[in-house]
Amino acid sequence: MKRGAFLALPVLFLLPATAFAAGEDPSLPLLFYLVFILLSAKLMGHIGVLLGQPSVLGELCAGILLGNLGLLGFQGVEGIAANPYVDILARIGVIVLLFEVGLESTIREILGVGLSSLLVAVLGVAAPFGLGWMVGAWLLPEASPYAHAFLGATLCATSVGITARVLKDIGKSQEKEARIILGAAVIDDVLGLIILASVSGIILAAEGGGSPGFWPQAAIALKAGVFLAGALLLGALFTPKLFSAAAKLRGPGVLVGVSLAFCFLLAYLAGVAGLAPIVGAFAAGLILEPVHFHEFGERHIHYLEDAMRPLSEFLAPVFFVQMGAKVDLRVFASTDTLWLAAALTAAAVVGKQVCSLGVLERGVNRWAVGFGMIPRGEVGLIFASIGAALVLGGERIIDATTYSAVIIMVLLTTLATPPLLKWSLDSRGTGQ
Amino acid sequence: MKRGAFLALPVLFLLPATAFAAGEDPSLPLLFYLVFILLSAKLMGHIGVLLGQPSVLGELCAGILLGNLGLLGFQGVEGIAANPYVDILARIGVIVLLFEVGLESTIREILGVGLSSLLVAVLGVAAPFGLGWMVGAWLLPEASPYAHAFLGATLCATSVGITARVLKDIGKSQEKEARIILGAAVIDDVLGLIILASVSGIILAAEGGGSPGFWPQAAIALKAGVFLAGALLLGALFTPKLFSAAAKLRGPGVLVGVSLAFCFLLAYLAGVAGLAPIVGAFAAGLILEPVHFHEFGERHIHYLEDAMRPLSEFLAPVFFVQMGAKVDLRVFASTDTLWLAAALTAAAVVGKQVCSLGVLERGVNRWAVGFGMIPRGEVGLIFASIGAALVLGGERIIDATTYSAVIIMVLLTTLATPPLLKWSLDSRGTGQ
Repeated sequence: MKRGAFLALPVLFLLPATAFAAGEDPSLPLLFYLVFILLSAKLMGHIGVLLGQPSVLGELCAGILLGNLGLLGFQGVEGIAANPYVDILARIGVIVLLFEVGLESTIREILGVGLSSLLVAVLGVAAPFGLGWMVGAWLLPEASPYAHAFLGATLCATSVGITARVLKDIGKSQEKEARIILGAAVIDDVLGLIILASVSGIILAAEGGGSPGFWPQAAIALKAGVFLAGALLLGALFTPKLFSAAAKLRGPGVLVGVSLAFCFLLAYLAGVAGLAPIVGAFAAGLILEPVHFHEFGERHIHYLEDAMRPLSEFLAPVFFVQMGAKVDLRVFASTDTLWLAAALTAAAVVGKQVCSLGVLERGVNRWAVGFGMIPRGEVGLIFASIGAALVLGGERIIDATTYSAVIIMVLLTTLATPPLLKWSLDSRGTGQ
Repeated sequence: MKRGAFLALPVLFLLPATAFAAGEDPSLPLLFYLVFILLSAKLMGHIGVLLGQPSVLGELCAGILLGNLGLLGFQGVEGIAANPYVDILARIGVIVLLFEVGLESTIREILGVGLSSLLVAVLGVAAPFGLGWMVGAWLLPEASPYAHAFLGATLCATSVGITARVLKDIGKSQEKEARIILGAAVIDDVLGLIILASVSGIILAAEGGGSPGFWPQAAIALKAGVFLAGALLLGALFTPKLFSAAAKLRGPGVLVGVSLAFCFLLAYLAGVAGLAPIVGAFAAGLILEPVHFHEFGERHIHYLEDAMRPLSEFLAPVFFVQMGAKVDLRVFASTDTLWLAAALTAAAVVGKQVCSLGVLERGVNRWAVGFGMIPRGEVGLIFASIGAALVLGGERIIDATTYSAVIIMVLLTTLATPPLLKWSLDSRGTGQ
C-alpha cells in the first residue's frame, strides 16, 4: 500500500518490518505522515507567500495535493485524511491556534465591539440561511421544503480557523476588524447550534407526525449561553487566583502547562455545551490577561505568547493540510453537482457580505469583515452529514449529490477567503 | 462512567451531551484527560522539587495516582492509561524530548566518548542478562531454561527517556556522564534488539524442532547498523543543504516545521529499522548543529532549542504521567509476585552498576553512569509481552505472575532513578 511513498527511502527499508518494530508502534504511520505534512506545508506555504497570498492557502493546497496523489497513481500518503492520530493532532492544532489568537485580545476589547459582532453574526446567519433555502427551492424543486431549509442551515456557521490564521499570517489579528469577526464567529456558533437543533427537531417532528418541541432548542441555547457567561465569569473571578497559585509552583514548564490546561478545560466545556471546542479555546485566550502573569515575573504573558508560537507552528499546519487532504477532487466530476455547488457558493459568499451592514464602528473595513466571515468549514459538513442521516418520507434530507455540493462549497469558500481577506486589508493602505 | 470526575463540574454538564457535541468529537475525552494530566503533573512535579527530587518523579507519581483512583472508588480518569490519543501524544512527547536533548550535544561530542559508551552498553546488557537468568533459575526452577533466558532478556534494555528528563531537570544534560549514558542507551537499543531476536528465534526453533537460524538476527543487526551509519552520513552530507534550502522559504514557522519533520523522519526510519523511534529522534538532534542554521539568521540553533521547550513542556509530562497511569497497583497484591519482583529489581539495578567499569575517561562520575542506566521501560514490557505470546511445550514462556513481576521491576527501576541520579550528581559537589 505504501509502495509509492517508500520509493524515496533506502531499499533496505523495503524489507518487511519485524513485529517488534512497525507492527507494534502506532506512532510510525503518524510520524511518516507528519514528515509529509510539515514539509509540504512549509514548501507550499512558501509558494503561497511568493504569490502574495497568506501561507495558509499554500497549506490547504498542500493538503489537497497530498490527499489526491492517489488519483495520479501515487499511493502512501492518502491516509492523511483518515488517520485518527493526524485528526487528533489537527484538532489540538486548531485549539492551540485559537487560544493563541485569543491571547492577543482581551475580553474588554471584544466586548467593545460586541454590538457590531452581534449584528454581524445575526445578519451573517439570516442572509445565507434565506439564500441557501432559495437555492434549494430553485435547483432542487422536487425535494421537500425541509430539505431546502436544511441546505440553508449548512450555510450558516462561519469556520473561524482559516480567518484567524490569515489574520495572524498577515499580522492583523489585533485590528478592530479581527475582533468583530472573531466575536461574531463565537456568536455564530451559538446561533448555528440553535438553528441545527430547530431544523432537525422540526424534521423529526414532521416524520413522527407530532409538533416540534420548543424545550430542546431552549435547553441547547441555555447551555451554550451558560457556557459563555460562565467563561467570562471565570475570567473575572477564578483565573487570577489560579495563576497566582500556579506562579508559586516550582519545576519546568508550569506556565505553559497550567495555561494549556486552562485552554483545554474551556475547550472541553465548550464541547460538552455543544459548541465547537475552538470557541472555548478562544475564550480561554481572551480571559488570560497580563494581570494574571504578574507573579510569574519576567516576560509575563508575552512569554506565553512566545511559547504558544512553536506549538501552533507545529500543529496548525496539521489542521490545514488535513483539511485540504479531506477534499476528494472526484466530487468535481459531476456537472449536476457543480451547478448546485456554484449556486451554494454564491449564496454563501453573498450572504455573508450582508454582514458588513452590521458594523456600527466608523473607520472599519467592511469588506474585510464580510470576507472574513466567508469560510464554512467542518460545521457545515457536520450539518450536511446530520442531514444525510435524517430520513423524511423514506428519502434522505441531504442526498449524495447535495452532500458533494456542500463539500465543494466548503472548499471554495475556504480557498477564496485568504486572497480576499488579504486584498481587502492591504487595499486599506496599511501595508502588509 | 465519568460520574466521579464530572462532580467537579457545574451540574449543567451532567446533562447528556447532544449528538452534535460530545458524541461526535473524539477530542473531548482527550481534552478532559489533558487537563488532569497537565495540572497533576505540574502540582506533583512541584512537590517533587520541594522534596529535592527531579520533577519527573512527581509526574510519574501523578500518573500512578490518576491511574489508580479507580481503586479508591473515583472513576473518570482511569482511561488515561488506555486512551489511544493520550498514548500517541505521549509517544510524540518522548520523541520531542529526546530530540531536544540531542540538540544539546553534537555527534562529535558523542563519538568522543564512543568507546566508553560501547563498553558501558555491552556490560550493561551482559550483566543484567546473566543475573536475570540466574534469578529465573533460582525462583522459577520448574520453568524451562528458555524462560530463564527470556527473563534475562527483559532486563537488558535501558529506557533512556527518564534519564534524559532527569538530566534536563537538574541541568546536567551536557555533562560527559550524560553523553556516555545517552550514547550507551542508543547502542543498548541495538543490542537489545539482537538479543530479543536471538532468544525468540531459539525458542521458536526449539518448539519447531529445528535449529535457530543465524540470518534473521544478522539482518536485524544489519538494518539497525545501516540506520545508525546512515543517520550519521545524513548529518555530514544532506542536512546542511536541506537547511540552507529551508532558510530560503518564507512563511511562518519554517525552522520549527522543517526541524520537526527531520526529527520525525529519523524517528520513523529508526522504527522501521526495528529500533525505538526515540533513538532516531536523538540522532536527529545530534546531527543538527549550529552550522545548519547560519542562513536562518538571528538566534540560529538556540532559537530552535527555545522553540522545542514549550513543545516538550506540554508533551513530555503526557508521556511520564501516562507511564505512571499504566501501573496497576493491584499487581503488588501477590507475595509470590513480590519476591520475584524484588529479585528481578535487584538484578536489574546491580547488573547496570557493572556498567561503570566500562567508563574509560578520568574524572567521570561512575556512579552517575551506573544509576543513569538503571531505568527499564516499555522495551522491557514489550519483551515480556512477546514472551507471554511465545508458547513452548504447551506453556507460556512468561506467565501472568512473571509478567506482573516484570511490571513491578520496571516501576521500581523507574522510580529509583531520579533520586539516585540526582544524589550522585549533586554529591560530586557541582551543586544543582
